[in-house]
Amino acid sequence: MNEAPLNGTEMDSRDQEREDDIHYGLSDETIQEIKESLELGLVEHIRQTVAELHSADIADLIEQLKPKHRSMLLEIADDLMEAEVYSDLDEAVRDDLVEEMEPAEIAELVTELDVDDAVHVLEDLEEDEQKDVLKELPAEDRIAIEEGLAYEEDTAGRLMQRDLIAVPEYWNIGQTIDYLRDTDDLPNEFYEIFVVDPRHHPIGTIPLDKAMRNQRSVPVKDIMQREQKLIPVDMDQEEVAYLFQQYRLASAAVVNDNGALIGMITVDDIVDVINEEAEEDILRLGGVSEDDLFGTIFETTKTRFTWLLVNLFTAVLASIAIGLFDTTMEKVIALAVLMPIVASMGGNAGTQTLTVAVRALATRELTANNMFRILGKEALVGFLNGCIFALLIGIVAWLWFSDPTIGWIIGVAMVVNMLVAGVAGMTVPITLDRFEIDPAVASSVFVTTITDIIGFVAFLGIASLVLL
Amino acid sequence: MNEAPLNGTEMDSRDQEREDDIHYGLSDETIQEIKESLELGLVEHIRQTVAELHSADIADLIEQLKPKHRSMLLEIADDLMEAEVYSDLDEAVRDDLVEEMEPAEIAELVTELDVDDAVHVLEDLEEDEQKDVLKELPAEDRIAIEEGLAYEEDTAGRLMQRDLIAVPEYWNIGQTIDYLRDTDDLPNEFYEIFVVDPRHHPIGTIPLDKAMRNQRSVPVKDIMQREQKLIPVDMDQEEVAYLFQQYRLASAAVVNDNGALIGMITVDDIVDVINEEAEEDILRLGGVSEDDLFGTIFETTKTRFTWLLVNLFTAVLASIAIGLFDTTMEKVIALAVLMPIVASMGGNAGTQTLTVAVRALATRELTANNMFRILGKEALVGFLNGCIFALLIGIVAWLWFSDPTIGWIIGVAMVVNMLVAGVAGMTVPITLDRFEIDPAVASSVFVTTITDIIGFVAFLGIASLVLL
Repeated sequence: MNEAPLNGTEMDSRDQEREDDIHYGLSDETIQEIKESLELGLVEHIRQTVAELHSADIADLIEQLKPKHRSMLLEIADDLMEAEVYSDLDEAVRDDLVEEMEPAEIAELVTELDVDDAVHVLEDLEEDEQKDVLKELPAEDRIAIEEGLAYEEDTAGRLMQRDLIAVPEYWNIGQTIDYLRDTDDLPNEFYEIFVVDPRHHPIGTIPLDKAMRNQRSVPVKDIMQREQKLIPVDMDQEEVAYLFQQYRLASAAVVNDNGALIGMITVDDIVDVINEEAEEDILRLGGVSEDDLFGTIFETTKTRFTWLLVNLFTAVLASIAIGLFDTTMEKVIALAVLMPIVASMGGNAGTQTLTVAVRALATRELTANNMFRILGKEALVGFLNGCIFALLIGIVAWLWFSDPTIGWIIGVAMVVNMLVAGVAGMTVPITLDRFEIDPAVASSVFVTTITDIIGFVAFLGIASLVLL
Repeated sequence: MNEAPLNGTEMDSRDQEREDDIHYGLSDETIQEIKESLELGLVEHIRQTVAELHSADIADLIEQLKPKHRSMLLEIADDLMEAEVYSDLDEAVRDDLVEEMEPAEIAELVTELDVDDAVHVLEDLEEDEQKDVLKELPAEDRIAIEEGLAYEEDTAGRLMQRDLIAVPEYWNIGQTIDYLRDTDDLPNEFYEIFVVDPRHHPIGTIPLDKAMRNQRSVPVKDIMQREQKLIPVDMDQEEVAYLFQQYRLASAAVVNDNGALIGMITVDDIVDVINEEAEEDILRLGGVSEDDLFGTIFETTKTRFTWLLVNLFTAVLASIAIGLFDTTMEKVIALAVLMPIVASMGGNAGTQTLTVAVRALATRELTANNMFRILGKEALVGFLNGCIFALLIGIVAWLWFSDPTIGWIIGVAMVVNMLVAGVAGMTVPITLDRFEIDPAVASSVFVTTITDIIGFVAFLGIASLVLL
């Protein structure tokens, strides 16, 4: 560890306080307290509590309250909240609040935000409303935001900050430091200084710690890192996030089509993107198109409906497959009793494989290069587990219905379906990915339809051949 | 945008090159080329290609090759690879490679890594092997790594870097800068300077950009931010990640039980944690305990087995429930044909709800404060979609079997099961979370067992009452 020598002797009571204070995030007690205070109309108490909260925690507080309490809180303490509260809010909640505001109010809010956050708030508005708000903005802000909105959603252009430090390569560290000291309107936070050529193309970068360690006389050119990852302004945010993760970047320069430096992206914005993308995959795999926790009942019913409709269709397909064997079942009702087991096990094994595949496609671990090797592995894994479970369920079925034939019929069907599950669980996501359909969305419906139908048909089909 | 004036006029051919060069990550072509070169024994060509790759891309390359090719590549080009390649590798692949190495070789590798990365490599080894490696290390490294290993896995202690900059509060900016310039052994990258009191307790922090903007004479005490988030060394990494996200931190100080500064965590380490935690949730929801893409066939079969066994048990439970109604099905075989539909729709609706709930618990959006409100909402959403799908499937069943009674039986069962799905999909994860069981692991098996059994029993039970 590197430490400056500590010679002082004074003791300080602040520490004591701070140590007892290590509790982060908004506590349930605070929320409860605010709820009760709102009911009781304890305006001053509420204002005092809110004033002590971090803007991110205020956003959480608003999310946790019911709509009536949200409005009350804003009426009482809106002036105590920084504009950042709005950019931290869940989209559904923010939309509700912003809907109640006049264009002029939204404009006022937006001018207080960084351009990237402002764009984030405005991009959710209806086009008409967006125009009304833009009209209310000072020219400078309006131009910056319109420029931001002109980039496609989920691209580097929407993520980047326009404020950055760029210096020419013939400067030295001293000039750079003086420039920093003399300029008022600097970015909020930055970790590196960009070095640009006369055409404003980035040619190198100096991490701040490196700049600080060098003497004033050292030329920028001598210590800059020439290798840097440049981000084209239209790069998809998922790709940007990949870049930051792969190369452990703290920040990176964004360039336009001509290669000129027009912005920078810092890793804290990427943290949000990584979260968003992971959340998207989790929700989509679960058959939910978006985070609808804070949506209204009607909205949520609607967002869940489509997926359920697709599943109704596939469930009916499976029933039609079962219907082909109705006479067999009529004769041996044990088949109807046991039939869901094979389908269910296939569905679960298929889901395991497709989950690994979807994740590996997202992290680029599954590629054209190892796809066949891994497909072969999954088929074998399915076959092996199929054999084990065939044995288990075979014995159970035999003992249950006192009939060894039922036992080996369900065993064979199990092996077949688990093998199919392994193959389908890998092939379906890879194929969807090839056709540029998000494998997180559609894989599970395809795979479980396959394992359901194969499960029912294999079991009932073999039974028909053997028992009739 | 803030830019220094650009007066130079020289043009530069480097830009042209760089613009054509915007392609990131390892390309499939490179992997293919290496594979072929390995087969052909083109040693020089392989060494040249590897030398040009970033360590993170080399790690990806190794992952993509089959075991035989991995060993060949390491024999040919091991000396060209930085130690970081090993810390970037997937755990399963790294374990395979490290297993083949002698303790002395592992020790050599480990000394080249940062302490946190070294701990990461060593924590996966068997205890015996770990000891053998530690014995081979120089005393200084050994002590640092042993200290790291002494902290529990997945805590701040394992994540933190020990190298940091701490200065006393009576210094000024000039002294701080001189100290940075004079000290050789500085942390790789840092974004803030910590200010400590004589007991080495952190009392403030100065972001690097702020330090650079101020004159040499400014006292550290005057510009330091007194408010900072301190991380206890035993804090769980998930909690640390929450803190970084919630308050958009770039770095933070880690303190021991006495409140003394002992390390720092930077946001790039947090990016890995966020990914890990999201990956864990995705995989667990899919019934996979860990990323087994690069595991052997036997390992993968084993990791998938437990979950499938649990599911076999629940599938048999569902079959037992069906078995209660075997005489009813024998009389009306249409019931056996239609039976999976209600269970399947319930399972899907339940999965939607539990996915949202698991995610919202992880992001702390779902708390004791809004739990009942959201449970009520989910019940209503389930009921509403239940009504819609009851109508749809009721008509289909009626037309299919030309019997309106079958239609309304399946309709009522559908409403019941979708309502149950909404309630169970929310209640199960919340309850598991209360009992400190990871809701991502166990929710889906509970919920789908409930929806399966309720689905079958409601449908067949109502049918028994009405039709017999």
